[in-house]
Amino acid sequence: MTGAVELTEIWRADRVESLHLGHVVICKPGGEIVDAWGDPETVIYPRSSAKMIQALPLVESGAAEAAELGTEDLALACASHNGAAIHTERVTAWLDRLGLDDGDLRCGAHMPRDPAAAKVLTCSDEAPGQAHNNCSGKHAGFLTLTRHLGAGPEYLDLDHPVQVAVREAWEDVTGEAVHGWAVDGCSAPNFATSLHGLGRAMAFFAAARDGADTPREAAAARLRQAMAAHPELVAGEGRACTELMRAMGGGVAIKTGAEGVFVAMLPKQRLGVALKIADGATRASEAAIAAVLVRLGVLAADHPATRRFLDAPIVNCRGITTGHVRAAAALR
Amino acid sequence: MTGAVELTEIWRADRVESLHLGHVVICKPGGEIVDAWGDPETVIYPRSSAKMIQALPLVESGAAEAAELGTEDLALACASHNGAAIHTERVTAWLDRLGLDDGDLRCGAHMPRDPAAAKVLTCSDEAPGQAHNNCSGKHAGFLTLTRHLGAGPEYLDLDHPVQVAVREAWEDVTGEAVHGWAVDGCSAPNFATSLHGLGRAMAFFAAARDGADTPREAAAARLRQAMAAHPELVAGEGRACTELMRAMGGGVAIKTGAEGVFVAMLPKQRLGVALKIADGATRASEAAIAAVLVRLGVLAADHPATRRFLDAPIVNCRGITTGHVRAAAALR
Repeated sequence: MTGAVELTEIWRADRVESLHLGHVVICKPGGEIVDAWGDPETVIYPRSSAKMIQALPLVESGAAEAAELGTEDLALACASHNGAAIHTERVTAWLDRLGLDDGDLRCGAHMPRDPAAAKVLTCSDEAPGQAHNNCSGKHAGFLTLTRHLGAGPEYLDLDHPVQVAVREAWEDVTGEAVHGWAVDGCSAPNFATSLHGLGRAMAFFAAARDGADTPREAAAARLRQAMAAHPELVAGEGRACTELMRAMGGGVAIKTGAEGVFVAMLPKQRLGVALKIADGATRASEAAIAAVLVRLGVLAADHPATRRFLDAPIVNCRGITTGHVRAAAALR
Repeated sequence: MTGAVELTEIWRADRVESLHLGHVVICKPGGEIVDAWGDPETVIYPRSSAKMIQALPLVESGAAEAAELGTEDLALACASHNGAAIHTERVTAWLDRLGLDDGDLRCGAHMPRDPAAAKVLTCSDEAPGQAHNNCSGKHAGFLTLTRHLGAGPEYLDLDHPVQVAVREAWEDVTGEAVHGWAVDGCSAPNFATSLHGLGRAMAFFAAARDGADTPREAAAARLRQAMAAHPELVAGEGRACTELMRAMGGGVAIKTGAEGVFVAMLPKQRLGVALKIADGATRASEAAIAAVLVRLGVLAADHPATRRFLDAPIVNCRGITTGHVRAAAALR
């Protein structure tokens, strides 16, 4: 985390109340760095920002096609969703088509972020299911590949064919050997990677063409397109991934990850972006990615959704705007 | 925020995933610095960590005595409470004794943090009242002083006698002129202060004696003792203020503030502590204050509550410990 630079400021009245440091890298396919802030070689856990990498084996193996997955399912495989009905019903239907159910998932259960879904569970004293887990689409993808490979049910084990395939794809698209691994919030292995490597991977996804020569490139194109086509499935109403992808009007795919990670894939520019807030703050990663997307000309600075994240008003419970979450000048 | 040093580390597997920088100062009465990390002269908004300062005029004016406030009420005046029944019922009864009601508060309403109270409101589609606001005790104190002074109802105006008295007390105990002000989450003015000044104020509270010569010192002693006597009223079940004060077995009073502020008043040692996490993270301020309290010999390192904040396990939704929130070596 050394070498982190100021990326997001929290203003209250005329003073910076809190400050978020971090690292950003913008890459071309192959990994050439176009622009960087902080230290692009810092090693991070990409967390959920790498879900499209974890979904590559699902698609390139033919498992997705064999299971007749739609673009909605592929978007969910790359999602950290709110557990709203539009998410859980699709995941449940997907498991059903595989002849599996909620109990076959290994992501664990947590209360959905979607207020309506959480209210139903809370007020009926009902426990959330694993389909409510924000990672349930990724895990449905893991189960689909497990089925396709005829592998065992413990698909999160590091030596399970699914995770072996994920790691091979991960090291290929990042262009580096993993720097170790950790257990993620959803219990899946998450591989430590340099920010530069993650940016290189995002550039690979950005530049991936339809009808590409290699199954991996074709898979990357399909996953990127599925994310951009279904912003509401990748996160949910009000979330940065969903609102900013909507504001960019398709094409560009972006994804948040826990502990202040954000990535973007810009197909027209054939550029990949990866950023990490050193202290792990989501509010800061959202402001920083919005600034980078405006800077790269794919997000309109005057779009209401842009302002909501790039220069987000802090409004207190009497409706008074007391400050702002603001991307630092260096990114503007 | 320049000069901030590493105070809290977020570990995942064998790697520091995120890092929190900040500033800490330990002061004697009068402001002599005993120990410091980072820059003690950094200017911050103390936010809710200054509630005992904002409550000084309530007590020293005689308003608290005239209204027959108990130590529970004084603890609530210094609290950022969970809006549980033990909090809201006392605040409501207090307002009732003044012949006032929820509508006289100016803190605004937000959903209580207490799960049981939030569930009742959510499942009955009932909106929270202003008494549910975590600052409602502070505001009941402001209203009590307003009544005592025969002042107007808009007690949050900067030129209202209540806020004029708060500012005079604030500048006296911090030993410095305020560096401007901002509107807090509860709409009250919050005065920018150096961390050193806040630490000096906490040392004043720490050293304040019963039956002191001055009304201000007597008020400080009563407020500190009320906080230490009622940990459950200052925050709520599971909260750092409540659990750590319980673990210290009375005497020492501590208080959190938004955006990563924490303060402590150590009467036996006659020391005041103030800390600010530069990025505003509460998880980091809780680990850091626990480390400082252990270091100063008032909190047992092996107490379960200590470990919960000093070296807090990060447990995922399948019960797997994936990492730790850990105070940095510099504080241990």
